[in-house]
Amino acid sequence: MRVDDKYFRTLWPKEARSAVLQIIDQRQLPHHFIIEDLSTLEETARAISEMHVRGAGLIGATAAYGMYQAACEQRDMGSAADFLKQTRPTAINLQWAVERMLTALAEEKDLYDEAMLIADEDAEWCRRIGEHGVQLIQDIAATKKDGKPVNILTHCNAGWLAFVDYGSATAPIYKAHEEGINIHIWVDETRPRNQGAQLTMWELMHHGVPCTLIADNVGGHLMQQDMVDLCLVGSDRTSRGGDVGNKIGTYLKALAAFDNDVPFYAALPSSTIDWSISDGVKNIPIEERDGEEVRSVRGLLDGNIVDTQIAPEGAKTANYAFDVTPSRLITGIITERGICTASEEGFRSLFNDRQAG
Amino acid sequence: MRVDDKYFRTLWPKEARSAVLQIIDQRQLPHHFIIEDLSTLEETARAISEMHVRGAGLIGATAAYGMYQAACEQRDMGSAADFLKQTRPTAINLQWAVERMLTALAEEKDLYDEAMLIADEDAEWCRRIGEHGVQLIQDIAATKKDGKPVNILTHCNAGWLAFVDYGSATAPIYKAHEEGINIHIWVDETRPRNQGAQLTMWELMHHGVPCTLIADNVGGHLMQQDMVDLCLVGSDRTSRGGDVGNKIGTYLKALAAFDNDVPFYAALPSSTIDWSISDGVKNIPIEERDGEEVRSVRGLLDGNIVDTQIAPEGAKTANYAFDVTPSRLITGIITERGICTASEEGFRSLFNDRQAG
Repeated sequence: MRVDDKYFRTLWPKEARSAVLQIIDQRQLPHHFIIEDLSTLEETARAISEMHVRGAGLIGATAAYGMYQAACEQRDMGSAADFLKQTRPTAINLQWAVERMLTALAEEKDLYDEAMLIADEDAEWCRRIGEHGVQLIQDIAATKKDGKPVNILTHCNAGWLAFVDYGSATAPIYKAHEEGINIHIWVDETRPRNQGAQLTMWELMHHGVPCTLIADNVGGHLMQQDMVDLCLVGSDRTSRGGDVGNKIGTYLKALAAFDNDVPFYAALPSSTIDWSISDGVKNIPIEERDGEEVRSVRGLLDGNIVDTQIAPEGAKTANYAFDVTPSRLITGIITERGICTASEEGFRSLFNDRQAG
Repeated sequence: MRVDDKYFRTLWPKEARSAVLQIIDQRQLPHHFIIEDLSTLEETARAISEMHVRGAGLIGATAAYGMYQAACEQRDMGSAADFLKQTRPTAINLQWAVERMLTALAEEKDLYDEAMLIADEDAEWCRRIGEHGVQLIQDIAATKKDGKPVNILTHCNAGWLAFVDYGSATAPIYKAHEEGINIHIWVDETRPRNQGAQLTMWELMHHGVPCTLIADNVGGHLMQQDMVDLCLVGSDRTSRGGDVGNKIGTYLKALAAFDNDVPFYAALPSSTIDWSISDGVKNIPIEERDGEEVRSVRGLLDGNIVDTQIAPEGAKTANYAFDVTPSRLITGIITERGICTASEEGFRSLFNDRQAG
């Protein structure tokens, strides 16, 4: 997508077949736009676990490239796969992409081509999510009087920065913007890491989409006061029953949407679906991260990115990174093959060829 | 309450009948404990609007002292009342305390004594809220096996720092702690101003109550996973129908509590009840504050309190400071006269002598 006057993806090889992967170091956003070289499997794994890259699709595409780097380094590929898989526990795309690279290896495919294909498919799936999802926005826009905007609330960053291009939740938003529909996005800041404030705001603003930053506490009030027409979120892992594992706090917004009859959609490429799990609330693993993320906040001070301490010295913290929104609260799921209900039947109607159980 | 080895209230006259009010400058907490002199009506009004003091009860008691200062300065008392009332729009205690001082003036009472009485009553009401509310905690503790703690979630700061002493939501907590009940408090950080991280954590830690800081996004997940036994919040203005206007984000926690059968109580002195309003969702005014609070976060860096920028330069923000939780989501209300349902009948059962309509 557009960064000022130039188009970017979130990762690309330094040169064709190079072992060096280039990424945007997302820890520096929105303050500094820095391209980083990841030259080895070790560097790539660290970039995932320390969140230079993050987001369901991008983690998968990065890990796939890590497997190519492992091959370049003549590593034991089984160990490399295990090493990459444990960098982040919740996102299913990571497991999926690494497994796919192992399969490609077993089938003697070219691993560079496979990693490129995974990235291209991710971008193409997000593009299609945009084409399907924009219909929802068109329908709401048609009901608006006096050219009032369609107000969409999103949580965390399910934008192009979380994928290879377009994003999942943002794909319908970018498509609607391209079509000239009057839209306005409420962006949850998404503590503790503030991906909404730092990433979603940055990408929407640089692409020219009207947006307003709010604290995570605000969405319920906005929905209660008829200031939200649609909630659009992403997913890090979705059960085949339609429960959506996504950034912590998503469940609270789904409850508010349900309580106020606001449509609540999750947008996700099918690589995010975990066909092995039916009940997501019970079975989607929830990553716990370092409590320092809660005790402190990263921001810009006099041109430098610093972490300031917001809690008393020695404060105990808990830092669950994701929660699970039960399917009963979800109006529908937008995938690369169309929109379906958040249910096993819904997924079966679109992915009969893929479903395991 | 206890700050290390010394007991404090949140405000006190520098000397008996002095025009100088002393307060704890809460903007400096949890990092620095600073006593501030407020010598004039102007200084007191600014301390309220710029949140050196905040919280329903404390705002009222401070404004009452401001009226005494106005009298010392031989001001026009009607203008002084208007000036103080407009410092914060949501908290009803502010209006209530200023009106009560005007009534005292009309009745030729001693204004210093009246301001002291308002502060003492606030403390006494909170103490009684603790005595009534602790029964809820005792009942839950009785069901716990193996001495497991009663887990209580609270939002923002409805602690002693928000009142003159004891607090509202924290009064039952301090009482339970005093009785030796094993309790553990989940503290929402409460963006954008982080009163939970900065104030509630500080006061619980200094009083020795076990507590854990969480991002505002986390409570839904905790309740879904049976990690919360009770939600206890305060109120800045409560309609006579039992709708609770409280810090932004309270409504989201009430939804999660309702969805997971977790009891949700608001604790409030009756000075917080607005008898003139029935439907709080429609009629409680919601303060909008400066967007800079959302774009930035206040924290400690190298011993200094600094504001760091978390959003892209030029990001638009919206900053609603309160929301309203409808009575249907509230299990009960704890007042200085006992516990009642969140309804007009409930309030009538306790406050038949006070109700206007």
